[in-house]
Amino acid sequence: MPDRNRRLVLAERPTAMVDERTVRLEEADLPELGDGEALAKVRYLSIDPTIRTWMDDAPGYLPPIAIGEVVRAGGVAEVLSSNNDQYATGDLLFGLTGWQEYVIADSAQRTMQKLPPGVSATAALGILGLNGTTAYFGLLDVGALKEGDVVVVSGAAGATGSAAGQIAKLKGAAKVIGIAGGPEKCAWIVDELGFDAAIDYKHDNVPARLRELCPQGIDLYFDNVGGEILNACLANLAMRGRIVLCGAISSYNESERSGPSNYGALIIRRGRMEGFIILDYFDRLPAAQLELAGWLGEGKIKSAEHIVQGLEHAPEALNLLFTGGNTGKVLVRV
Amino acid sequence: MPDRNRRLVLAERPTAMVDERTVRLEEADLPELGDGEALAKVRYLSIDPTIRTWMDDAPGYLPPIAIGEVVRAGGVAEVLSSNNDQYATGDLLFGLTGWQEYVIADSAQRTMQKLPPGVSATAALGILGLNGTTAYFGLLDVGALKEGDVVVVSGAAGATGSAAGQIAKLKGAAKVIGIAGGPEKCAWIVDELGFDAAIDYKHDNVPARLRELCPQGIDLYFDNVGGEILNACLANLAMRGRIVLCGAISSYNESERSGPSNYGALIIRRGRMEGFIILDYFDRLPAAQLELAGWLGEGKIKSAEHIVQGLEHAPEALNLLFTGGNTGKVLVRV
Repeated sequence: MPDRNRRLVLAERPTAMVDERTVRLEEADLPELGDGEALAKVRYLSIDPTIRTWMDDAPGYLPPIAIGEVVRAGGVAEVLSSNNDQYATGDLLFGLTGWQEYVIADSAQRTMQKLPPGVSATAALGILGLNGTTAYFGLLDVGALKEGDVVVVSGAAGATGSAAGQIAKLKGAAKVIGIAGGPEKCAWIVDELGFDAAIDYKHDNVPARLRELCPQGIDLYFDNVGGEILNACLANLAMRGRIVLCGAISSYNESERSGPSNYGALIIRRGRMEGFIILDYFDRLPAAQLELAGWLGEGKIKSAEHIVQGLEHAPEALNLLFTGGNTGKVLVRV
Repeated sequence: MPDRNRRLVLAERPTAMVDERTVRLEEADLPELGDGEALAKVRYLSIDPTIRTWMDDAPGYLPPIAIGEVVRAGGVAEVLSSNNDQYATGDLLFGLTGWQEYVIADSAQRTMQKLPPGVSATAALGILGLNGTTAYFGLLDVGALKEGDVVVVSGAAGATGSAAGQIAKLKGAAKVIGIAGGPEKCAWIVDELGFDAAIDYKHDNVPARLRELCPQGIDLYFDNVGGEILNACLANLAMRGRIVLCGAISSYNESERSGPSNYGALIIRRGRMEGFIILDYFDRLPAAQLELAGWLGEGKIKSAEHIVQGLEHAPEALNLLFTGGNTGKVLVRV
């Protein structure tokens, strides 16, 4: 059994992207296993934009990561030894593993659960995990998606955005437009995932393309990015349009954040802008996962993974989300 | 019968407050009355912030006022002569009179309606008119006010805000806090109207006072002003808090508008920000007016009027709304 653990801890709060000053690799002794505890080897880490928000000393939906604490993150780990009869050696567990090689799981704390049978580690962290279910409840519950809606999704080649666009089509949206960075991503979401159209925010005039593609306005905008794209969607909102605020990755590395100056469109267009956190849907996750797993099995929904090798590269993997270096779900194989 | 009409037309689009360059007084011949038409003398004009938004060449919920067109505004007028058997001499009509001395009413166009019996001209333009009903539906329908809510209202000494705070109390809010400019207005809303507390945005630290007065956060914020006050309320939103966007008077005279940089609180707090226009509630106005009239009769709701004398002073009356020179409803007596 291993007795040392390599882990990445928050060394100081980042003011922009994370780097070797903000996140420090350290080695520590693994404690003896207590009653009810299991030792598990982390196999995959889920790399999500929200990790960056936890590094700020600002109010959030979870407390900030403390200085010196292991960086909080979801992951999948394999049980190596267990003093808990709910966990057997070889079981795959998923939950908040953190950026480290080994994690101690304790069923009483309910932070690590067994992977359901037939679900792969990578799907559990992406399309059948928080990304897929975030897209699902964001669209259907918060956004009240209706058949015939014109839907726009930003961050459309990311793990959550790519799921959102496909779910919108499957649930009867008349038109789904994805906003992504670069021609490759735009081609992927249209040709592979079945989006009706794509806007390349790095090369296209986003407001002009939105007017062209949505002449009757946007009924539902699923926002992963904030910033000027949110503003452009506000300017082109349909009557009673809904904006689902899932994230704002364009601002997570900025110290000065600006708001959407076009928010007054919510008055003129009788629109609604609403935020949510998937944590609130935990009791309803199984129903969503069942439907997502069905679509996945039938090939009606696709996902892509961008896998980065090695725990020590987790900070660069996180930065990929903000530079747009990934297509699909970013995972670190530990 | 008069044959000349004095009227205020939009001479050029304002870039800030209106003045003698933006609005021009002119005299014109009154046309002969056609079939179905009535000539009415304007008695009162309703002065509302939205008039300023109609002067901009920007998309809105109604078309912009054209250059050379009479400034659009609600008002009450008395019938002088009539070729329409629905209007008798002496009848008081209300509707879109515009900034002028005389208006031609035509029942087929449904722009001017008879004042209901027992309703005064000034009440019809304020507490029983668009201000009272805007407050009513904004709180109850858009904001989904619940018993026990902590409610904050900005522009609280204005016509709509003063109604909103009182309606919130009558409908069971646990605490109603008004934000207004200056100690007189703050004293008025607390001592006369029964708000639980007031914040003087000209002298108090608004974010600090909000934290103090709403330690559990704001459940419902009725926003008339936008700007930094909206931002402060976002920062202090309760879980599942609702922000009702009624107006944004802090920005109507600005050419560069900024957005609420704290809108990300909607994600963290699972909040909702929604706009509305009272025009959408026209079929439901009578029910609201009945309830408002009942409260008014019982002395449970109060209103104040700030009356400016003379058509030619309508532009200054409009500016009062933005300088905060009024308490209660601004009317022009023509």
